[in-house]
Amino acid sequence: MKTRLTEAFGLTHPIVSAPMAMAAGGRLAAAVSHAGGLGLIGGGYGDADWIEGAFAEAGNAAVGCGFITWKLADNPAVLDRVLARDPAALCLSFGDPAPFARRIAEAGVPLMAQVQTLRDAQRAAEVGARVIVAQGSEAGGHGERRGTITLVPEVADWLAAHSPDTLLLAAGGIADGRGLAAALMLGADGVLIGSRLWASREAAVSEAMTGAAIAATGDATIRSTVMDAARGLRWPARYTARVLRNKVTDRWHDDPEGLRADPEARADWAAGWQAGDPERASTFVGEAAGLIHDRPPAAGIISRITAEAEILLKRGNSYNQSLS
Amino acid sequence: MKTRLTEAFGLTHPIVSAPMAMAAGGRLAAAVSHAGGLGLIGGGYGDADWIEGAFAEAGNAAVGCGFITWKLADNPAVLDRVLARDPAALCLSFGDPAPFARRIAEAGVPLMAQVQTLRDAQRAAEVGARVIVAQGSEAGGHGERRGTITLVPEVADWLAAHSPDTLLLAAGGIADGRGLAAALMLGADGVLIGSRLWASREAAVSEAMTGAAIAATGDATIRSTVMDAARGLRWPARYTARVLRNKVTDRWHDDPEGLRADPEARADWAAGWQAGDPERASTFVGEAAGLIHDRPPAAGIISRITAEAEILLKRGNSYNQSLS
Ligand SMILES: Cc1cc2nc3c(=O)[nH]c(=O)nc-3n(C[C@H](O)[C@H](O)[C@H](O)COP(=O)(O)O)c2cc1C
Ligand SMILES: Cc1cc2nc3c(=O)[nH]c(=O)nc-3n(C[C@H](O)[C@H](O)[C@H](O)COP(=O)(O)O)c2cc1C
Repeated sequence: MKTRLTEAFGLTHPIVSAPMAMAAGGRLAAAVSHAGGLGLIGGGYGDADWIEGAFAEAGNAAVGCGFITWKLADNPAVLDRVLARDPAALCLSFGDPAPFARRIAEAGVPLMAQVQTLRDAQRAAEVGARVIVAQGSEAGGHGERRGTITLVPEVADWLAAHSPDTLLLAAGGIADGRGLAAALMLGADGVLIGSRLWASREAAVSEAMTGAAIAATGDATIRSTVMDAARGLRWPARYTARVLRNKVTDRWHDDPEGLRADPEARADWAAGWQAGDPERASTFVGEAAGLIHDRPPAAGIISRITAEAEILLKRGNSYNQSLS
Repeated sequence: MKTRLTEAFGLTHPIVSAPMAMAAGGRLAAAVSHAGGLGLIGGGYGDADWIEGAFAEAGNAAVGCGFITWKLADNPAVLDRVLARDPAALCLSFGDPAPFARRIAEAGVPLMAQVQTLRDAQRAAEVGARVIVAQGSEAGGHGERRGTITLVPEVADWLAAHSPDTLLLAAGGIADGRGLAAALMLGADGVLIGSRLWASREAAVSEAMTGAAIAATGDATIRSTVMDAARGLRWPARYTARVLRNKVTDRWHDDPEGLRADPEARADWAAGWQAGDPERASTFVGEAAGLIHDRPPAAGIISRITAEAEILLKRGNSYNQSLS
């Protein structure tokens, strides 16, 4: 399956793995790149040692790295360390990429900007992003309110008119070949996949949390701020994170400040997180949980998605006879 | 374009128009049916005289009608009046269809159930819905939180396993051929379209509100309860409605009870609604606003959507060469 993304990055499949903080280490990123996609390390909040370890784990696989933009401002040196490794791409999400765009460009590394609104997509294109990732609210982890099915074509229209060489990926809710095929129909050059690859053998995620996501339907998630209150993180107010509903969200979703002010409850969350416990901490996963039923190796996930998408895209041609 | 939907309902195109309260009268429904889709009258809260007028307006076109389920319980007689007209379909949204399913079945009218969660889809199938409309949060008007891109394939999987003859439509954010093609890839048998047809010549919508939606990007909408507070409607708490942000949402979104308790503000909203004023009242439209740039006749919208989808579905087959 060739698209502008596969051409530009030398991939076999138009699939990028999400830079999931903690969950996407070097093993997952390398597995995705070896399988013909582009793997991203979840540089998250910018812990330099963790990131170094992840690159080491990835070995000689061509992988990229993602950062949480508003947090990167606290620790800009980590960006230089990563750029020095000549990553296949540098992904910035959640904040204005402008302060970092020039250094990334000067390093000759393609900037991938993950955005949640048309407005932010325009900004990212204007500061020179090579790839824009339009992330819908269905997504696991942090994000915002717009849905994938409208954001992608609207950004595609804007790019076609104003920045036609910028590539576009769809993110949020894509977990199988149907999602990939739909994203291509919507005008994307490929997809960025989080949750589905979070539930892979190579992801750094506990069996218990993976199991909770596999057992859940897509109805069972919620966008909340409890996980940030529990960790004492001050995310900009526009972003919430999608997690499985559980006792923590039931208790604190409407009172995150109460959780911030409750050291015992926070310690309990932290202990639960350490233990990978989906009851006491938060399981970061998207609505795609309802489409996830197993935990295979990443390569198996990618070949399954692409094979299914290819069949659907072929069949698209014969909708006249496709009465199933 | 043949699908199970076009076969079952004798349509030329797999497109149903949404039963938009107030906006979808007989003119719009008839125009959609005459154009080869299936038009639905927006029976909304069950105003029998308005509905009779809409059916009269539709003339001899084969149209259906939709009701807001939780409200129908207050006035069940209106259902019988509509069933006596032998509508092409009876659509129920927002509430448990069980209390009405038997009468609809006995009248020989196909039940279309619009749902917002997997759980509600299961319920609707179990009470005998012929068609399930999986409505994502992107949608204009009332709805809930799940996104179209995950809800549709998850419901498709459940139906395939448990109720394979039930048809599935995607709703929420579909406004052009890309959306239709994507919905088919996701496993839908067709689409239900609101916002895009709300901005048609035949819809009963003011020029000013239509103009506001055309001028807006998809970033400019919000799910809120202000419009229900202003009208004194007690919708079940799980539902909010998507409208354009404006002074009313800025002022009252976080304080709907304040609006309920403020007769002057409510009177101002009502006067604004009467005047079709997008500043003083609420413009019900979805994230698809960002994909809407004109107000053509409904037939033109439908032919444009289907022509674009056909091209995309054909091209799907040649993604190997589709470097644009
Ligand atoms: C466990 C988890 C952690 C995530 N952490 C990050 C992150 O640190 N930085 C980031 O840009 N996105 C993060 N995301 C969001 C992804 O980049 C991506 O937008 C999302 O996973 C796509 O939707 P999907 O989960 O439905 O595939 C995370 C997602 C998950 C599931
Ligand atoms: C102006 C407007 C009024 C609506 N009123 C109703 C209604 O009375 N009953 C109903 O079932 N759905 C109603 N809806 C929701 C539609 O049935 C449908 O789910 C939605 O329009 C689909 O998303 P879209 O607007 O992005 O096409 C309304 C939508 C709009 C835009």
